[in-house]
Formats: sequence, structure tokens, C-alpha cells
Amino acid sequence: MKRKIVVTTLLLGWATVSVAADTPDPTFSFPINIDHVWVLLSAALVFFMQAGFKAFEVGMVRHEHGNAVAIKNIIDWIIGSLIFLFLGFGVMFGKSSYGIIGTDLFFGMGIQDNPDGSPLGSIFFLFQIAFATTALTIVSGAMSERTGFIPYMTASALVALLIYPVFGHWAWGNLFYADNPAWLADLGFIDFAGSTVVHSIGAWVALVGIWKIGPRLGRFDENGNPVAFKASSYAYSVMGLLILWLGWWGFNGGSQLALDGAVGEIILNTNIAGAAAGLVAFFHCYWFQKREDLYPKFLGGIIGGLVAITACCSMVSHLGALAVGLTAGLIHNYAYDLILYKCKLDDPVGAIPVHGFCGVWGTLCVALFGQLSPETSRLTQFGIQLLGCGVAFGFTTIVSYVMFSVLEKTVGLRVSPEEEKTGIIIGGEVAAEEEEEIGMSEAELLELMK
Amino acid sequence: MKRKIVVTTLLLGWATVSVAADTPDPTFSFPINIDHVWVLLSAALVFFMQAGFKAFEVGMVRHEHGNAVAIKNIIDWIIGSLIFLFLGFGVMFGKSSYGIIGTDLFFGMGIQDNPDGSPLGSIFFLFQIAFATTALTIVSGAMSERTGFIPYMTASALVALLIYPVFGHWAWGNLFYADNPAWLADLGFIDFAGSTVVHSIGAWVALVGIWKIGPRLGRFDENGNPVAFKASSYAYSVMGLLILWLGWWGFNGGSQLALDGAVGEIILNTNIAGAAAGLVAFFHCYWFQKREDLYPKFLGGIIGGLVAITACCSMVSHLGALAVGLTAGLIHNYAYDLILYKCKLDDPVGAIPVHGFCGVWGTLCVALFGQLSPETSRLTQFGIQLLGCGVAFGFTTIVSYVMFSVLEKTVGLRVSPEEEKTGIIIGGEVAAEEEEEIGMSEAELLELMK
Amino acid sequence: MKRKIVVTTLLLGWATVSVAADTPDPTFSFPINIDHVWVLLSAALVFFMQAGFKAFEVGMVRHEHGNAVAIKNIIDWIIGSLIFLFLGFGVMFGKSSYGIIGTDLFFGMGIQDNPDGSPLGSIFFLFQIAFATTALTIVSGAMSERTGFIPYMTASALVALLIYPVFGHWAWGNLFYADNPAWLADLGFIDFAGSTVVHSIGAWVALVGIWKIGPRLGRFDENGNPVAFKASSYAYSVMGLLILWLGWWGFNGGSQLALDGAVGEIILNTNIAGAAAGLVAFFHCYWFQKREDLYPKFLGGIIGGLVAITACCSMVSHLGALAVGLTAGLIHNYAYDLILYKCKLDDPVGAIPVHGFCGVWGTLCVALFGQLSPETSRLTQFGIQLLGCGVAFGFTTIVSYVMFSVLEKTVGLRVSPEEEKTGIIIGGEVAAEEEEEIGMSEAELLELMK
Repeated sequence: MKRKIVVTTLLLGWATVSVAADTPDPTFSFPINIDHVWVLLSAALVFFMQAGFKAFEVGMVRHEHGNAVAIKNIIDWIIGSLIFLFLGFGVMFGKSSYGIIGTDLFFGMGIQDNPDGSPLGSIFFLFQIAFATTALTIVSGAMSERTGFIPYMTASALVALLIYPVFGHWAWGNLFYADNPAWLADLGFIDFAGSTVVHSIGAWVALVGIWKIGPRLGRFDENGNPVAFKASSYAYSVMGLLILWLGWWGFNGGSQLALDGAVGEIILNTNIAGAAAGLVAFFHCYWFQKREDLYPKFLGGIIGGLVAITACCSMVSHLGALAVGLTAGLIHNYAYDLILYKCKLDDPVGAIPVHGFCGVWGTLCVALFGQLSPETSRLTQFGIQLLGCGVAFGFTTIVSYVMFSVLEKTVGLRVSPEEEKTGIIIGGEVAAEEEEEIGMSEAELLELMK
Repeated sequence: MKRKIVVTTLLLGWATVSVAADTPDPTFSFPINIDHVWVLLSAALVFFMQAGFKAFEVGMVRHEHGNAVAIKNIIDWIIGSLIFLFLGFGVMFGKSSYGIIGTDLFFGMGIQDNPDGSPLGSIFFLFQIAFATTALTIVSGAMSERTGFIPYMTASALVALLIYPVFGHWAWGNLFYADNPAWLADLGFIDFAGSTVVHSIGAWVALVGIWKIGPRLGRFDENGNPVAFKASSYAYSVMGLLILWLGWWGFNGGSQLALDGAVGEIILNTNIAGAAAGLVAFFHCYWFQKREDLYPKFLGGIIGGLVAITACCSMVSHLGALAVGLTAGLIHNYAYDLILYKCKLDDPVGAIPVHGFCGVWGTLCVALFGQLSPETSRLTQFGIQLLGCGVAFGFTTIVSYVMFSVLEKTVGLRVSPEEEKTGIIIGGEVAAEEEEEIGMSEAELLELMK
Repeated sequence: MKRKIVVTTLLLGWATVSVAADTPDPTFSFPINIDHVWVLLSAALVFFMQAGFKAFEVGMVRHEHGNAVAIKNIIDWIIGSLIFLFLGFGVMFGKSSYGIIGTDLFFGMGIQDNPDGSPLGSIFFLFQIAFATTALTIVSGAMSERTGFIPYMTASALVALLIYPVFGHWAWGNLFYADNPAWLADLGFIDFAGSTVVHSIGAWVALVGIWKIGPRLGRFDENGNPVAFKASSYAYSVMGLLILWLGWWGFNGGSQLALDGAVGEIILNTNIAGAAAGLVAFFHCYWFQKREDLYPKFLGGIIGGLVAITACCSMVSHLGALAVGLTAGLIHNYAYDLILYKCKLDDPVGAIPVHGFCGVWGTLCVALFGQLSPETSRLTQFGIQLLGCGVAFGFTTIVSYVMFSVLEKTVGLRVSPEEEKTGIIIGGEVAAEEEEEIGMSEAELLELMK
């Protein structure tokens, strides 16, 4: 009771004090034009991808884990958006200190109406917040059904604060202040809308996460062969996929940060690559691989195509987009088998083949299929792209390894086996009616798990 | 058969006659600009909130009531939008008679290309229709699982015709005709996008409704303690929440009725408040309240933050928005307990804490955290805001009380206990296959309920 | 293994070759304006209708068929969009050969920045792709629960390649090149946003399809009376309906191909007609027809109203829109009974009353309620509209009949009875865990079906 009063008082007190901290009425002197309305609506579409990831993941996991997966998706948006908004954005886009890290624009100060910065002002800010939280959500899917709430939240916070914005600063650090140095961008690294910056970063955090935490109970039998777990509803995952696809109109189209003649082509290329990748993923699996993976490979393949075209959608022709999509579908299917059957890693939603492997492939496709400036050879560009992908992989996996190791040693990564079997209840207590429904005691469950 | 022919003939006859009533081809002389595209797309986002409310409510109620809740959500959009469009809009925005009620613009006449009116023309009209139906939908959620179809529809119609537009005229009556008197607005009452005008109004109708109709059967045990009812799917409610959140980009951003430099800040504030409220609602419940309410409080808290910022999003700084959100999260949690545990009122979707209490709080926050004009003291403004909230509460509860009392005495408010147990079938007849599935006769059910 | 290598090599080889085929960097000299942003976002909304159809259909079919219906919805988007994009668009909008068929603009060449073509460039292209795939999706719903994957895909491909674009060329062939002859348009046939061009075409393909393939097993008893099949979730169909309704803001509003003063009126009319049709469909069924059809008739009636207003939304007053909607609701209900009870055709999602009958009605309403040019009498216009509807019906049913007959003789149209009972698994194999869940062997199933 005492604690309650203290917390309430503190919050209300702080709230009142914050009035004094009010910044003066924001002014805005840039002329508002068609670019603002387009990027603002693109930001809305990218925000809506949270619903897409939510539905895709809820459909892919087992029925009893749906609620926890959904709640975690909201929590990572909440924590990630607040942290990125108040701190991460500045790390990523603030005045650069030696091209390593940004150092201003914290707490949303100086974003609106900054004569040196983007004329999109707070709309650029909104767009980037939506982007940052996409990276976080990728992690949640891969680690679903067994990760504890506290370690998951801590990891989300660190990605939003550190991993995503630091690498982002290296690749995109000159998007707000055009004269910022950003060493990868200055080298010539091109990642138009984030195949690497957003998607691979999320995937490599997830990769370390699922390797450290291990597979779900019973996912592999004693011979190490995967045991099929029933997805709760592919139909619902399709809803998620379609929301994601819609979101990609804004994700790629909005990354032009303007509405010009290229936007239609960018979105067209995005659609071509997604469709082509799905087509290949479907028939390649149907004819040459295990058909029981057909649905997840088909849906994952489509998203893989969308991820791959993300880096290069502004630089390829329609046929180039078709090539990126067709190859991404193949790469997705092989990567899926590699992760599951060779590496025996348990990625319930297939996030790593989609966002990691197809993300790298798309980034390389800039050099393979893109319209490069005449002074750059495809080989040089390929080397630079490879370097960017390698730096993303190295930086992310090392920091993630440290992060997950510390979390493992302190709060632990994993929920109890009971929770894993019966569905995680965030808050830690199985409510009475749930238990009844399951119809067995904890003792029986433990018995079962032997 | 005769009746069938009569109805058909009448409808077709009327339809043909209506040709003669055709107004001349609408002309439009205002220049179309970026404001039109922004407000039009905002209207689309607000319309889409119908899907958000639908999913949120279907997820929150018991499984067998999902279909009826969804169908009712569509019906209130249909009835509400037609009534508001043909009549309510004129009551709210028409030429004012002494600041009490509007008197023209009925049947959509004079909206397009009115030299005295809003240059947005029919786009303003569309935006307001979407707003009005939001208020209705709030009522449907709170009264779900036991309200009859006829009383519910009648109540919806009366809210769209009378309660919402009359109060709306007092607060927003000068939005179409700028020179209209609107007594609350003229006093200085500020409710930017409708914390009170839309959300509280809906909530206070719902409050009277659930008090008159009583709780769902078995919701409280003989000692008056609530018995947990299993929500059909929190994961699906999360889908609803994310659609609502997306809709709020248009709800608040579009209420600027223009695309200017403030829109980005408004949406940013909206996101900050929603996230902050969710964060507080989650951890406050986790640490200090009953953990079995964690999921509904978390989701409700987020919406509460979005409701609260609605009144003041255009007038607060980022830190002010954070303060509004953090406090709204707390207020939501306490109000939730007040309604459920103290007042023993049964609000299956938590609409009253969210839209009522957080709506009032947000309206007061205008005075607490907003950038007021220099000639108004915070205390004066607080008094005016309090007056506005009080008038909304008084007017709405009195009219609703009369309305529900008359409905109770005439058609009755409540479905039969059988329907309540097995899921309401609108149309009143349990179809054969449903009965079979339930596997018991009405007699057995009645037995059970003793 | 050998095949695998061959396919992989071919794909990668082709991909590399495609680099050489790169068209030069697209340039765009038209000024970008508010029309571009509006039509682009309308295209996004129309694309999102895929999610609406998906959810509507998944909710309407039996639970065990949900996954297959969802996957088919994605596949038809993928195949349809690629074929239409590379070939169908040129057939529909390319330089006309005698007003019969288009002959250029294949492979997306010449769309962007074509001085003779639409100034919307690739945004017009995107909008039309989204339209074309809507027609395909209609077919999938009607034929669900029993159609094989290969025949369904082949039919989709042929609709996208031939049926839709050829009729489209006759009615809308002058939308890209304004000087193209398009014989129906030149006669004066008016179908503003596609009641006939999109909706009826889809419905008539579906009509032939369900007639050729026959009803689902057990749908009619030995006396030919329909046996009720349980829809998996009307609540989920409502989600689909609301997404469709939102999509219609873009479908009709975007068909103006500009943002001018008419767009608000168009969307207003769209909403009025949808609401009015739902109202009539609901109460007409409630009072005069079998109440067990209330939910599907209500939801179908709304969509029927939206389909009907599609042809005439730009030409009617608000009261005219009300008349179109009210009558469409009636027509939907009678057509529903005609198809199901008189013709004994099994259309699980009610696509034919909605898209076929209401599509024709809406096209005729152009003559009945539209603001015609002074030199055209309503009777003449009615004759022209009737001719257009008749040509659409005749052309589509004849080509579809040939198509389905060939498919029937070659690959067969129907899945096995086992699959139909247990839910279609695309890929053809019932996975182990599914079988277990169903709990019976194929032999038992066959027994059951006797």
C-alpha cells in the first residue's frame, strides 16, 4: 500500500513538474507539400506492420501461445518506440561523433523545424520510429514460446537503444543531417530501405537468441530430427502476411522520403519481388523438398522476397526485381532447411531465413542487379555490400552474445517447462480457469515431460 | 407473401421517385489541396477503427458471443452512419439556433461547396460521420453478451440522432460554419479531437446502460465477488488494439482539418501517450494489483492513454504527452477496479475506465499540461474544462436514463437467459445445428441456471 | 537431385542474364501532384482488399478449410498480379487493334513517363493490377472447399491473361491511351469503377465454375434441400467485410484517377449504398425470409450494395445512392435464394448474388438514377447498359465453359472426397498430425461417405 502511494505520488508529481519543462510551442517554417503527406502515410503503414507481425506470429505458433506472443508484440512496440524516440533516434541520426555515434536530437528536441535537418521534421521522426520497432519485432517471433518476459523486454530495450541505432548510424547516419559522416555510407554501402539495417539486424539478434536459449521442449526427438509442431492457424498468418505486404508499400515507397516519379516504380518492384519469391518458394518446395514445410516456406518465401527487394527496389528494373524475387525464394527455402535440419535451431516463425538470409541476399543484389553510377564497377560495389553485411553480422552477433549471456546468468532466459507446455502467462501465474481447462496438475505435467 | 410484395413495391417505387429528387450535379469551386487528401485519408483510418473495435470486443467477450458482437458492430455503423448523415450532422454542425442546436445541412444538402462552410466540403462530412459512429461503438462493447437487438439498435439510433450531435453542437458547433455560436466553445472549452465529445459521451451512455441492464448471469457470485469469464482471445484483441492505434493517427492527426507542421507533432504525442499509458498500466497492475487483470488492464491502459491525449495532443510538448500517458495509465487501472470491484458493474470490454475516466482526465490535461493562450490562467481553464466534462456527464446520463427506462418498460433490454448462456443469435432462433453442438435442450439449460 | 540443380542453375542464370536486359533508369517528367498520392494510396487500399476477401471467405467456410482458402487467396494474387503485370495489362490498356485487344505495354514497358499515356504512369499500373486481382479472388471464394489446386490456379491465370483484360479492353480500353477505341465505351457504356468490368466478370466465371464442379459433398440432401454447413466464424467474416469496405474508399474514390471535388461525394455515395443495402438485406430476411440465412444475407447484402454503387457512384445524388443501396439489398436476398434454393448451386461465400446480380443491377442503375448527359435518354442508356451486361455475361460464361471443360477432362476439377471432408491440404498429402487429430483412417472416411 505504501509503495503504491509512493509510486502514484511520484508519477503525478513528475507529471506536474513536466509542465514546467514544456518546450515552447513548436513552429514549422518548411513549406508543407506532397512529400509530407506521403511519408506520413507511409509511416502509418509501417506502424501497421506491427499488426502484421503479430498476426503472422500468432498464426505460426501453437494455439496456447497466441496470447503471450501478441502481448509481447505490443510491449516491444511500447518499450522500443519510447526508447528509440527519446534516445535511439539521437544515437542514429544526431550530429555524428567521428562517424561512430550520433550525439544530439535526444528527447525529440531539435527535430521539428531544424534548418540543418530534414525538411520532413517530425514526420521523418515518426517514420524512423516505425522502422526501428520493426527490427525489434523480428526478434520476438524467433524466440517465441519459451523466452521469459523480463529477458525479452531487456533485449528489446537494448536493441532499440544500442544495436539498431549504432549500426544504423554507420549506414544511414546522414539522412537527417546531410553533412553527417556515416562511414559505411561514405564508403558507398547502399541499403535503400533496410534489408540489412532493419531486417538482418533483427535476424542476427534473433539468431544468437535462439542459439543461446535452445529449442522448444520436444521440438527435436532423441535423434535430433524435428518433430512437427502444429501452427495454430496458417489462415491467420496469411492475414499477417497481407498486412505486412501492405506495410511494405510504405516501408519501401516511403523510404524515398519524397513522392516523386520513382515511388510508383519502387512499389511495383516490391510487389514483383514478393510475388516471384512466393512462386519459387512454393513450387521449389512442392517439387524438390519436404511437402510438410509447404505452407511456412510459401509464406516465408514471399516475405523473403519483400525483404530482399528492400535494399535495391529503387535501383532495379522490373526484370531485375523479378530476378531478385525468384532467387530470394530459392535462398529462403535452402536457408530454412539449413537452420532447421542442419543447424537444429528452432525458429518457430522462420524469421532467420526470411530476414537474415534474404536480407543479405537483397543487399548483395544492389551490386548484382542495380543501376550503379558509371564510376563504380559491379565487383567493387559487391565488395562494399559484402563488407556492410559482414559488419552488420559481426557487430550484432557479438553485442547480442554478450547481452544474452549476461541475461542468462542474471535473470535467466527461459520460462518454466510448465509454462512452455501450457502457454506462457505473462505475470507468471496460471489463472484458475486456465488450469481447469488444461485439466491436469503441475505434477502431471512434470510427469509428462520426463 | 402480400407483405413481401408491398414492401418490394414500395421500395422500388420510392427508389424510382428518388430519381426526380436528384439534386443537380454537385459542383466544387474550392481549390483541392493537400489538406483534402490528408483529411480524406484520416477519415478512412477513423472508419477503419470500426474493425478495431470489432476485433477488440470479439477478443474480450466469451467465445460463443463473438458472432453477435461482430454483427452488432456492423449494424451500429450502418444505422448510426445513415442517421447521422441524414439528420445528426445537421443537428451538430448546422446553422445554430441560439447555440443550442443546428438547423440545416440535413440530408447532406449544402455540405459540398458551401461558401460559408468548411472548404473541405464532403470530406469534412465523411470525417465527421466516421467520428460519430465511434461513439456508438463504445456502447456496444460495454453492453455486450446480454443486450437485446432491438433495444440496442434503438439506443444506437438515439445516440446518433440526439445525444452525440447535441452535445457536439455545444462543443464543436463552429467547425463547419465558423461564425456559429457554440456555447461551450465560446466559453473557452477545448477538446481538440474528442476525449469528451466522442469518447466520454459513448462511455456515459454505456455506464447508464450497464447499470440498468445489470451484469451478465453469473458474473458476480453470491458474495458479490466477480467470477472470471474467459476472454475468447487476447491475441485477437491485440489485433483490434493495433487497428485502433493506427486509426488514432487519423483521429487526432486529421482533427487538425489540415496538413500543417503541427500534424507530425500531434501524431507523435498520440504515440507517446499510448505507449506511456500502456507501460504504467502494465507495471502498476503487475506490481500492485491483481495479476489476473494484467492483460485487460494493459490493453485498456494503452487505449486509455490514446483517449486521454485526444483532447490535448495539439497543445502539449513531448514531455507533456508523456505525463498525460503515464497518469492516464494509472487512472485507468484505478477506474477499472472502481467499476468492477467497488461498483460491481459488469463492463466486459472495460469501456468505461478507458473512454469515460481517461476521457475526462485527458480533457482536464488541456488545462494542466497544454500551451494555453497567455490571457488564460490554468485555473480558469481547468474550471472550464471541468464544466464541459460535467455537462457532458449530466446531459448524457439524464437522456440515457430516460431512454433506457423507456426501452426497459416497452421492448425490454435483455435477451433470454438461454441466449445469454449459449451465445446470442440475432434473429432470435437457435438454429438446429447450433443446438446440437451445444448438446443440451433448453430445459436442461434452464435447469443449469437455477 | 539433378532436377534440383538444373532448376537452380536455370533460375540463377536467368537472373544474371536479366541484368543485361535492364532497361535504362526510368525517368519521369510529368509533374507529381495530389492526384498521384491519392491514386497511389487508393491502389494500396484496393490491394488490401485481398486481406478482406481472405478473411471474409475464411470466416464463411467450414473451419477445416480455412487454411487452404487463405493460401489460395495469396496464390491467386501472386499468379494473377504477375500475369496481369507482364501481359494482361497490355491486353487491356495497350494500343488497340480494332477496339478488340490491346497490343503493347507488355512487361511494364512504356508505362512510366509515356507522353501519350496516363500522367499517373506506374501508379495507374499499380492501381489496375490491384483491380484485376480483385476479379480473381471472387472466383476462389465461390469454388472453395472442393476445387483442386492445379485447376484453380490455371483458371486464375486464364482470367488474368484473357477474360478480364479482353472485356476490360472493350469497356475501359481508353483509360491509358485516351484515343484508343474501346467499342463498349464508344457506344456509351458506363461502368465507373467496375460493377460489371470487375465484379460481374469474376462472378460469371465463378457461376460456370460451381455449376461444372457441383456442390460440396452433403450440401444438398436426397430431396435436394440444402443442409446447413457451419461457417467457421461470422465474426471473422465481419473483419473481412470491414477491410473490404475500407478498400472500397480506394476502389471507387481512386477510380476518379484524380483528387477533385467529386471524390468526397463518390465515397459518401459508396458508404450510403453499402449501409442502405445492409439495412434492407437484414430486415427483409428477418421479416420475410428464412432467418437461418440472416447473417450471410446481411453481410452479403452490404457487399452487394457496395458492388452496385461501384458503377454509378460518380453520377448519382445522395438520395440516388440510397435508392441504389436499398434496391441492391433486396436483389441480393432474392438472388441468394434463387441460386441456393431454386438452382441448387453451392456458392459457399455467396459470391454470385453479391458480385453478379448486384453488379448487373448497379450497372443498370447508371441509366435509372445517374445524371446523364442531356442528349441521352434514360431508355437509350438503359439499353446500352443492358447490352454491356449481356456481353459481359455471354463472353465470360462461354470462355469459362470451355476453360473449365478442358480442365475437367485433363487435370480434373475436384479434390478427393477425403480431402473435402478433412480440409484440403495443398500439396496433396495429409500430414501425420492432421490425420491423428481427425482420428479416423481413410477407409473409415470412405465408409462414412457412402
